[in-house]
Amino acid sequence: MSKIKLPVIILNFKNYSETTGKKGLELAKIAEDVAKEKGAEIIVCPQTTDIRLISSNVEISIFAQHVDSNEPGSHTGNNLMETLIESGASGSLVNHSEHRLKLSDIEKIVTKAKKNKFFTCVCSNNIQTSKAISALSPDACAMEPPELIGSGVSVTTKPDLVKETISTIKNINAEVYPLVGAGVTTSNDIIEALRLGAKGVLLASGFVKANNPKKVLQEMANALKEK
Amino acid sequence: MSKIKLPVIILNFKNYSETTGKKGLELAKIAEDVAKEKGAEIIVCPQTTDIRLISSNVEISIFAQHVDSNEPGSHTGNNLMETLIESGASGSLVNHSEHRLKLSDIEKIVTKAKKNKFFTCVCSNNIQTSKAISALSPDACAMEPPELIGSGVSVTTKPDLVKETISTIKNINAEVYPLVGAGVTTSNDIIEALRLGAKGVLLASGFVKANNPKKVLQEMANALKEK
Amino acid sequence: MSKIKLPVIILNFKNYSETTGKKGLELAKIAEDVAKEKGAEIIVCPQTTDIRLISSNVEISIFAQHVDSNEPGSHTGNNLMETLIESGASGSLVNHSEHRLKLSDIEKIVTKAKKNKFFTCVCSNNIQTSKAISALSPDACAMEPPELIGSGVSVTTKPDLVKETISTIKNINAEVYPLVGAGVTTSNDIIEALRLGAKGVLLASGFVKANNPKKVLQEMANALKEK
Amino acid sequence: MSKIKLPVIILNFKNYSETTGKKGLELAKIAEDVAKEKGAEIIVCPQTTDIRLISSNVEISIFAQHVDSNEPGSHTGNNLMETLIESGASGSLVNHSEHRLKLSDIEKIVTKAKKNKFFTCVCSNNIQTSKAISALSPDACAMEPPELIGSGVSVTTKPDLVKETISTIKNINAEVYPLVGAGVTTSNDIIEALRLGAKGVLLASGFVKANNPKKVLQEMANALKEK
Repeated sequence: MSKIKLPVIILNFKNYSETTGKKGLELAKIAEDVAKEKGAEIIVCPQTTDIRLISSNVEISIFAQHVDSNEPGSHTGNNLMETLIESGASGSLVNHSEHRLKLSDIEKIVTKAKKNKFFTCVCSNNIQTSKAISALSPDACAMEPPELIGSGVSVTTKPDLVKETISTIKNINAEVYPLVGAGVTTSNDIIEALRLGAKGVLLASGFVKANNPKKVLQEMANALKEK
Repeated sequence: MSKIKLPVIILNFKNYSETTGKKGLELAKIAEDVAKEKGAEIIVCPQTTDIRLISSNVEISIFAQHVDSNEPGSHTGNNLMETLIESGASGSLVNHSEHRLKLSDIEKIVTKAKKNKFFTCVCSNNIQTSKAISALSPDACAMEPPELIGSGVSVTTKPDLVKETISTIKNINAEVYPLVGAGVTTSNDIIEALRLGAKGVLLASGFVKANNPKKVLQEMANALKEK
Repeated sequence: MSKIKLPVIILNFKNYSETTGKKGLELAKIAEDVAKEKGAEIIVCPQTTDIRLISSNVEISIFAQHVDSNEPGSHTGNNLMETLIESGASGSLVNHSEHRLKLSDIEKIVTKAKKNKFFTCVCSNNIQTSKAISALSPDACAMEPPELIGSGVSVTTKPDLVKETISTIKNINAEVYPLVGAGVTTSNDIIEALRLGAKGVLLASGFVKANNPKKVLQEMANALKEK
Repeated sequence: MSKIKLPVIILNFKNYSETTGKKGLELAKIAEDVAKEKGAEIIVCPQTTDIRLISSNVEISIFAQHVDSNEPGSHTGNNLMETLIESGASGSLVNHSEHRLKLSDIEKIVTKAKKNKFFTCVCSNNIQTSKAISALSPDACAMEPPELIGSGVSVTTKPDLVKETISTIKNINAEVYPLVGAGVTTSNDIIEALRLGAKGVLLASGFVKANNPKKVLQEMANALKEK
């Protein structure tokens, strides 16, 4: 697998207008600056169309927001893993709550990614799906309660859910990194997530739509070290 | 709408390994060379990840292979129209046989594209779906019998189907460009398609997997003029 | 096509607990009673599992809520048209807002239904999709603005939308019955819909969840005659 | 959970014309006759529309071919679990190779089924998906290599795959019944499947399209006892 350092902050740029093209590049540069300044592992997930622009200009790891399961060939409009790699992505979110996949496709993606040393961060929505996903042995499983995504109410307001999810993932496969997301907006949310056992967080609007994204991310990067 | 010149050759790069990254850029440069040399309208549809690479290096029109219907916002892994435009695409294939969409999404895409002057080439599979698609008033409707796609047997071997499709499209909306595709591999296929009334062709493997893509495309570009 | 009388009230039983099994049969019997008492055309759309129960016990027309596009064969869990017919259904809703389909599947369903004299009532969400659907020549096109479905605010509160939809359908194919739905809960809604040119209405909760479904339906059936 | 006896033969009626309505009932009666004659556990999976017809006339267990994940409410054209139960089904196939589902829906179905004591037989396609499915704790996991479905070449021609699948399922959750399917057409296929550790088989055309379905099933039922 593509190596990442723990704990990690993964920034999902979604389809926000604030992340399109040059604006996405600026946000990625902020992420790079903070990563270097703080010695923190920060990964950005740009829009597919912007991956190459960003990989050419920043030196932190880049994940796609989605990768398809198909091999090279007669497939139109898909995100081919080989092309994502060639463009500078070292991994991908998979099965995000806004892009749910069939189980058979998740499995094909994870299995293909292993052969290509491409990092898979597969999203789950509860304890049960976290268990099933961990059984597929992706690199990371990021549990996000759908009702909290974009809500501003952090997943860490459900500490028992977070703890049980993490122990479930570990019991199935201790090598899968347990991550959490949804509603993460402050450094305290991150401190709390790590305290509960998560190895990192996944966030989107908390960074992208912040009044001062750099300041927010600096505080979050500090939080990684307080662990 | 984004203007294109007729007749047109649209080259779909699909997810072929021959079109990934730099190899896709080389094929796009061949298309650009032939377009300039022959004064022909040739449009390339690179993989999404490669659009910006190619738009930065060639001067012919670029279409995406797929565009999603959503507005900017909380959508993960989608191809946002605004970002495709920012990256240099002036249009998109929609509803390709390898990426069929719900009717309600095709309509949202076409309607949104009009506001953004983004060209939509919506694919159909027979006379009836060509009629329905034309009723949505996209810029072009490209009819491709699915059983012939990638077969090497040209759509023009069904001249009655081609003629009836074109007259159906015209009857519904004379401003929709009628295109055809599937199995187009030779300049004769193009001559025949134009003779039957098509305003252009959509092809993929016939160019991408040709032993000498430049020679094939030069002959095809000549065919555009023989009309 | 399977004949129906105009104007028509189509009752969608959805997956409401109030329509499951025997409770659905009771509602269908109410519909039958009112249809006979008032000489009105009322069609019920039971849950798939209940179609045969209801067709064996009531004599009004029965539509499925969904039919798949496939021919008999190796398809698991699909609603085969031939089996719906054998079970007593004479038509089906297609592409309901809660069950949107790919354009290519809608076309396959409509085309197959014609051969089987199976009535297709294809749902649309606006003027443009009504136009595309009419181009496929189903038996009826039922326009339902998604934001009004289940809202209690009738589609007829948008009279210009209803009128323009109906004239659009007629211009494309005068043989397609123009129906409307969404938020229809009173006899006045029906009077208004017919006055605007609709040939019938599609409703669900307005009947199923009424305190007195029989009384509501009797008033609605009266409205059909006031036209 | 709804109890079943092991080993079991599950007969998927698919959308074959041979299983529509009365013909499906005849096949179900054959299954019932053989089940009683041989004291064998045989379960039939009729077309959804036929479940009630068959449950009213035969006394063996009936599974649906597909069940949706939604609760009762505004869902059109779905197979509501509560209605399947009311109609006489005691379980369902889930995620069949011809009806693949999103992971999040499989989980919702399995979790809802437990509350309703509704048996879930979730289909997988290889060792990895069998592992993920078992982690969800359905009642049974039926592994069917897609390339062998309907091929006439039995899954048992891959004994190592069958054995490893079964041990994988057991390691994750010993209470999940490991079943296999694809290409099962003879009593020897069943003997071999049971010898390899499977607790039953899933088959379709091998029974439905047999020249003499009763004879075939009698031999298969004998095979259950030879174990």
